[in-house]
Amino acid sequence: MALALSLGRRGQGLCWPNPAVGCVVVLDGRIIGRGWTQAGGRPHAETMALLQAGELAQGATAYVTLEPCSHHGKTPPCAQALIDAGITRVVAAIEDSDPRVSGQGFEILRRAGIDVKTGVMAEQAAQDHAGFFLKTEQGRPLVTLKLASSFDGRIATATGQSKWITGPEARRATHAMRARHDAVMVGAGTARADDPSLTVRDLGIDQQPTRVVISRHLDLPLLSQLARSATEIPLWLCHGPGADTERLRAWEGLGARLIPCAVQGTQLDASDILQQLGRAGLTRVFCEGGGALAASLLANDLVDELVGFTAGLGIGAEGLPMIGALGLSRLEQAPKFQLVSTRQIGQDIEHRWTRALK
Amino acid sequence: MALALSLGRRGQGLCWPNPAVGCVVVLDGRIIGRGWTQAGGRPHAETMALLQAGELAQGATAYVTLEPCSHHGKTPPCAQALIDAGITRVVAAIEDSDPRVSGQGFEILRRAGIDVKTGVMAEQAAQDHAGFFLKTEQGRPLVTLKLASSFDGRIATATGQSKWITGPEARRATHAMRARHDAVMVGAGTARADDPSLTVRDLGIDQQPTRVVISRHLDLPLLSQLARSATEIPLWLCHGPGADTERLRAWEGLGARLIPCAVQGTQLDASDILQQLGRAGLTRVFCEGGGALAASLLANDLVDELVGFTAGLGIGAEGLPMIGALGLSRLEQAPKFQLVSTRQIGQDIEHRWTRALK
Repeated sequence: MALALSLGRRGQGLCWPNPAVGCVVVLDGRIIGRGWTQAGGRPHAETMALLQAGELAQGATAYVTLEPCSHHGKTPPCAQALIDAGITRVVAAIEDSDPRVSGQGFEILRRAGIDVKTGVMAEQAAQDHAGFFLKTEQGRPLVTLKLASSFDGRIATATGQSKWITGPEARRATHAMRARHDAVMVGAGTARADDPSLTVRDLGIDQQPTRVVISRHLDLPLLSQLARSATEIPLWLCHGPGADTERLRAWEGLGARLIPCAVQGTQLDASDILQQLGRAGLTRVFCEGGGALAASLLANDLVDELVGFTAGLGIGAEGLPMIGALGLSRLEQAPKFQLVSTRQIGQDIEHRWTRALK
Repeated sequence: MALALSLGRRGQGLCWPNPAVGCVVVLDGRIIGRGWTQAGGRPHAETMALLQAGELAQGATAYVTLEPCSHHGKTPPCAQALIDAGITRVVAAIEDSDPRVSGQGFEILRRAGIDVKTGVMAEQAAQDHAGFFLKTEQGRPLVTLKLASSFDGRIATATGQSKWITGPEARRATHAMRARHDAVMVGAGTARADDPSLTVRDLGIDQQPTRVVISRHLDLPLLSQLARSATEIPLWLCHGPGADTERLRAWEGLGARLIPCAVQGTQLDASDILQQLGRAGLTRVFCEGGGALAASLLANDLVDELVGFTAGLGIGAEGLPMIGALGLSRLEQAPKFQLVSTRQIGQDIEHRWTRALK
C-alpha cells in the first residue's frame, strides 16, 4: 500500500478534477502491475495497473489507495474492470466520499465474490486525497499557503524589494511544491509588485499548474509575464462584479479565463473564490501570498496547510507584513496550526504546519 | 578538551566578569582533577582542578580552555600555580585576548620548561569565550537576542496580549538560556506591558542573572515585579540624561542600580548602553525584546546570536512587530545571520542563528 500511495502522489497536480490514485497488482508476492491516475484524469490507476498485469491478473490482489469507482463516467467503472480481470482480493486504503461512489464500489466487488479489505494506511490516504475530498464534500480545493519571509515575518522591504529574501534552495523547493498542486494562486498586489510567471522551472515537468490571480478590479498590467504566457499556460483571473469591461475583454483576448466572484466587505469573498475554483475542477491550490490574500484566507479558516521559509535577515517594521490585518481582538481567536516538520534548507529554514484540530 | 569545554560552560552566567574556563588534569590517561571558574569568578578552573589532583599533579597534563592567567589579580596567576604543582604539559584551546595575559601565560609556562600546545578545539573555545573576548576587545558584552513570535513575526496582539504565544517547552528553554547569561535585558515597553520578573524559574539555580531594563525616561511602574524584587535580585536601569530626579531616587531607594547612558536620536544609544554594561562587568547579555530595543541593537550591528521561537498561529498585521523600524532602503542593508540549527520544541519551532560573516 505504501508503494501504491507513493505512485498515487505522482498524479498530484496533474490529474484534477480526478483524485490522484495509485494501484499495485500483486500475485504470489510478485508485483505484476503498477498504475496511477494519468494527467488529465485518465486512464485511472486500476486500468493502467491491470493493463500491465494482463492475463496474470487472474487470482491476483489489487492494492488501491481509494475505493474503485462504481459509476459509468467517461470510462467504465474500475470496480467492474477489476472483476473482469479476475482479481480475487482488493485491499483499499479509504472509502471515496463522492456520493456517486461512496461504498458502492466496494459493494460491487463484494457482490462479485471478491475479498475486500479497507482502511489500510487510511490516514496517509486521507492526507493524499484531502484536496479531492474537500472538493467533493465542501466544494472547494485544499489550500496550501506558502510564505517566504525574513526572520521578522516580512515579505518585502517598504519599497517592495523582495528578490531575494530566501535562497535558491528554498525557491527550488517552492517550485517542487507548485508542481504538486493543480494551481498556483497569488493576489493582485503580488502580481503587480513581482511580475511573476508562477511557473514550475528547472524540474523538467510536462504540465504546468494553472495560474490564478485574485484581483477585484482586474487592475493588472497587460504587459506582464502572466499576460505574455496566457495562451500557453492557463491563467485564470478571479475578479469582482465591478471590474472594467474593457479590461475584461483585454484579458480574455490575451487568453485568460475570467472567473467572476462575490465581494465580501471591500475585497473578494475568499470562500466564494474557492467555491468557484472547486467548481472549475481544482482540488489543490498553492497560494503564495501576498499578505492581503493570506489574511483573507486565514480569517475565513480556509488554509489547510501552511509552509514557511524563513531567512536569517531582519527587515524591520516598515517592511511588508506576510499576513495582512486579521482583526483579532483576543489571542484565542488566532488561526492555529500544528507543526509537521522543520528543517534547514540552504541558508534558510523550512517549516510546515497543518490546520490544528479544533 | 571537550570535557574541559563542557565543564567551562558550567560557569557561564555565573563567573562574570571573569571568563568561564574549564580545566582537566590527566595523569597516565586517568582524570585526576576537574575544575571550572566558580560563581563570582574565583577560584579559577586551574586552581580547582589542581586542588583535586593534589600530589598526583606531579608530571601530569593540564587541559585548559583558555590561556592560564599570568598577572597577579585577586588571586596569584594560574600559570604559576600549574608550575608549582609540577604539571609538565599544558594543552590549551585558545590564547587570551586580555592584554594583561595575551601570550604571556604561555610564555611563563614555556620558560619553566613546560611543554605547551595551543589551538586544540579553538573554534569551540572562541565561541564559548566570545562574551569575554568581546568585552576585552570591544568593551561590550556578547548579545543574544531572543524573540518569541507568531508564525507571522508578531510578539503580541494589537491590544498587547502576548501570554502565551509560544508553549511551555519554549518558555522552559528560554529560562535555561537566561541561566547561561550574565544578565537578561528588556526594553521599557516590554517591562510595562508584560510586568515580567525576568528570573530563571524551575531550574533549581542558586544565582539569578542580573535584570537590565532600558528606559530613557525611567517611566516604569514602581509597583511591578521588577520593583518588588530589586533588593533580592540585581536590577539595573539604563536611563537617559533627562530622566526625572524623583524617579531616579525612587528606583535607587528600591535597590536598583542606575546606569546613565548617552542618547542617539530619540532613544538611548545602543552602543553606549552595551559599553556601560561591559564596564559594569557583563560578558553575556540575553535580550528578550521588545521590538524597539531589538531594532536598535540590530541597526547598530550589536546582535551576536539570534534565537527565534515561532508558534503556529497567525496574529496579523495589526499585531506588535518583533523588530521595530530599521530604516532600510535596500534589502542588501538588512542585518544578516547564519543558521546554526532548527528543531521542534513542544508545538513550536526553535531556530538559532549567529552573526553572518561580512
